[in-house]
Amino acid sequence: MRRKASPMTAVLDRPAVPASPASALVCRNCSARYPLGAQHACLECFGPLEIGYDPAALAGVSRADIIAGPHSIWRYAGFLPVGQDPLTRVDSSTGMTPLIRADRLADELGFTAPVWIKDDSANPTHSFKDRVVSVAITAARELGFDRIACASTGNLANSVAAHAARIGMRSIIFIPSDLEPAKVIQTAVYGATLVGIDGSYDDVNRLCSELSELDEFESTAFVNVNVRPYYAEGSKTLGFEVAEQLGWRLPAQIVAPMASGSLLTKVHKAFRELSSAGLVSRSSWRVFGAQSAGCSPIATAFENGWDVVRPVKPTGIAKSLNIGSPADGPYALDAVRSTGGAMAQVTDDEIRAGILLLARTTGVFAETAGGVTVAVLRKLSESGALDTGQETVVYNTGDGLKTLDAVSDTAQLTAVIPPTVKAIRNAGLL
Amino acid sequence: MRRKASPMTAVLDRPAVPASPASALVCRNCSARYPLGAQHACLECFGPLEIGYDPAALAGVSRADIIAGPHSIWRYAGFLPVGQDPLTRVDSSTGMTPLIRADRLADELGFTAPVWIKDDSANPTHSFKDRVVSVAITAARELGFDRIACASTGNLANSVAAHAARIGMRSIIFIPSDLEPAKVIQTAVYGATLVGIDGSYDDVNRLCSELSELDEFESTAFVNVNVRPYYAEGSKTLGFEVAEQLGWRLPAQIVAPMASGSLLTKVHKAFRELSSAGLVSRSSWRVFGAQSAGCSPIATAFENGWDVVRPVKPTGIAKSLNIGSPADGPYALDAVRSTGGAMAQVTDDEIRAGILLLARTTGVFAETAGGVTVAVLRKLSESGALDTGQETVVYNTGDGLKTLDAVSDTAQLTAVIPPTVKAIRNAGLL
Repeated sequence: MRRKASPMTAVLDRPAVPASPASALVCRNCSARYPLGAQHACLECFGPLEIGYDPAALAGVSRADIIAGPHSIWRYAGFLPVGQDPLTRVDSSTGMTPLIRADRLADELGFTAPVWIKDDSANPTHSFKDRVVSVAITAARELGFDRIACASTGNLANSVAAHAARIGMRSIIFIPSDLEPAKVIQTAVYGATLVGIDGSYDDVNRLCSELSELDEFESTAFVNVNVRPYYAEGSKTLGFEVAEQLGWRLPAQIVAPMASGSLLTKVHKAFRELSSAGLVSRSSWRVFGAQSAGCSPIATAFENGWDVVRPVKPTGIAKSLNIGSPADGPYALDAVRSTGGAMAQVTDDEIRAGILLLARTTGVFAETAGGVTVAVLRKLSESGALDTGQETVVYNTGDGLKTLDAVSDTAQLTAVIPPTVKAIRNAGLL
Repeated sequence: MRRKASPMTAVLDRPAVPASPASALVCRNCSARYPLGAQHACLECFGPLEIGYDPAALAGVSRADIIAGPHSIWRYAGFLPVGQDPLTRVDSSTGMTPLIRADRLADELGFTAPVWIKDDSANPTHSFKDRVVSVAITAARELGFDRIACASTGNLANSVAAHAARIGMRSIIFIPSDLEPAKVIQTAVYGATLVGIDGSYDDVNRLCSELSELDEFESTAFVNVNVRPYYAEGSKTLGFEVAEQLGWRLPAQIVAPMASGSLLTKVHKAFRELSSAGLVSRSSWRVFGAQSAGCSPIATAFENGWDVVRPVKPTGIAKSLNIGSPADGPYALDAVRSTGGAMAQVTDDEIRAGILLLARTTGVFAETAGGVTVAVLRKLSESGALDTGQETVVYNTGDGLKTLDAVSDTAQLTAVIPPTVKAIRNAGLL
């Protein structure tokens, strides 16, 4: 195992760097604790590890500290496992994406309370994955790795390749070979080694787990395998930012898409950390999860009252959510059930309609995952599971330019005519 | 002509709103002055009008005012013709895009001084056009228009349609019918009326000029025709932001793409305004302009020492720059010549290489216009016209996801293999 580099020796005249608030890797199943490092599974029970923090350190973070920080995810370094020293951060200007008040969308869906879109298509590679990758690659460098890798449904591939190019680190990226062309090209353009796998994302992920154990990959950080505990913490910033952007308070309801289920659980974790640290007043919130009918292992478990998430073989247009064996599925179920939320699944047609509804009411062009989330927002507000009288934040995690095929049949030219006023008149456009 | 609405009556308990620093519309040819309003051409000489300001008002803007403003273009409202009252702004979270220090790019091109990328693909619709549209649609609403329109090579179409969707204003958009599919779909998805014209951008622009004179379009603001003086001012924010992000100083050299030529002249204007207002210390700067060989009317005039810009029929892959009859060509020539800068033009192959060079050294995936700019950066640094010992800012104005075809042949999968370690080994990837 790689050890943490020590960049601090012989550096003079620098302000004292705050220590990391992270204290250990903690098993989410059996609570066994391990030293911080490149480990992701419990040696006792094989459960997934996550970062554990020193509660006193988190309690010491103030609003003023955050506000004084950069306009990026790194303003929340006090709640992250790495990056306390600004010089160690891989900074791609990720985060502090717009929180957009969507009054026209709220009106269409019958909400009387505000609806907000947290628009993560504004990140550098246009998805929320820039958050987790910024944290993961910062950790990877600290832990002494010299190459970065991932298993990806597309957005993660884009982000890993871009971050690696930014800092001049080698990268090797594994994706299902049938991804959208935009996601393939946007990864290869950065100079990454890009390996298409004949198989599903779950096959790709399994392969990467095997590879990460090989000597040949000893110096390679797989962001969502061997440094996954660090990586996953990046998603907490989606919770921190919403709270800060709302004026240091929590929304009553959030709706998030689910692939592995990690994002949703980390927003929930962020809200708990902010509450515990006293940075927001204590209030309750409910968590809602969105999947496509083509890949709904977590939502199906919710709907059937199961505790176990049964793997599925994914289909459908929401490829970025097509994880049939979701690592964080049980934890997503916990977060939703413990807060009194709900989950739902939507068809490909509903996804397309969700993309168009969001675009024409807010000016935000989401990828299929965003269409899933908006369609579930509609479905759960119609069913009454979502309270239309309570403030709601909807997470858009990706960009419509990456999944153009989903709407290319409907989003087309109104007319094609010669450049004359007469033609405009004849086309009925006057 | 529409008159300014007066939203201020009977509003109590609001802080005093600063007056607009704009004082008149001024002819760029003959200096004739007109009252502020929806007018774009001089009645005396038919020259283009631009916004004139009260010098005392501009001199009154302080760094503290700007820093206290929002993290968007509207922090510079003190230098803009509209939006002094925050409640009147159309705010799409545009601006304050990253200024990225590109050390790896600098190394490859032999620069000893810093090279920075101002990355406007981070704007909401992923081009610099969000800046000009935010200002134009704010002005259009103030001037009483109820529909927004444009002639566009694609990025402007995306931005106008998105802004209109955000505020629920009708839009009608005119584009050449042969634009990239991504730009067509991203406009139509917002619900815009989208008219494809069989012809060049210059044909589309001419048609829009005619339409803007018709009674049927009396209440329609064509952002780059009848409200163009307001619209164009939005590009100044590309200059303001760079100066602020550099710590309130000006770079020695800037490189910008040229379509109409407006952007480059407005960055130059912004630097002059900042210097005059004492917000940066006085220093000299040189302005460099980039065009593609497929459409190089301004660069060709520069290279031949002409004062007149001769129209051309555009070709080539840099479609967003394909304006054969550039309205601001003469002013771009002035800005470049008066500062001791230069212009150059590059082939489609050089443009593709520019996109790839930028992507693999910085993690920024630019559209073809960005490829033009980076290729010109290379060309002019090799020729010695750009001083590699002086700090240089390069403007990337758009996003590679919109022009994927430019690099789809080269940016592809390294290998496609089954999901086994053996296959990885056989492919030589261990």
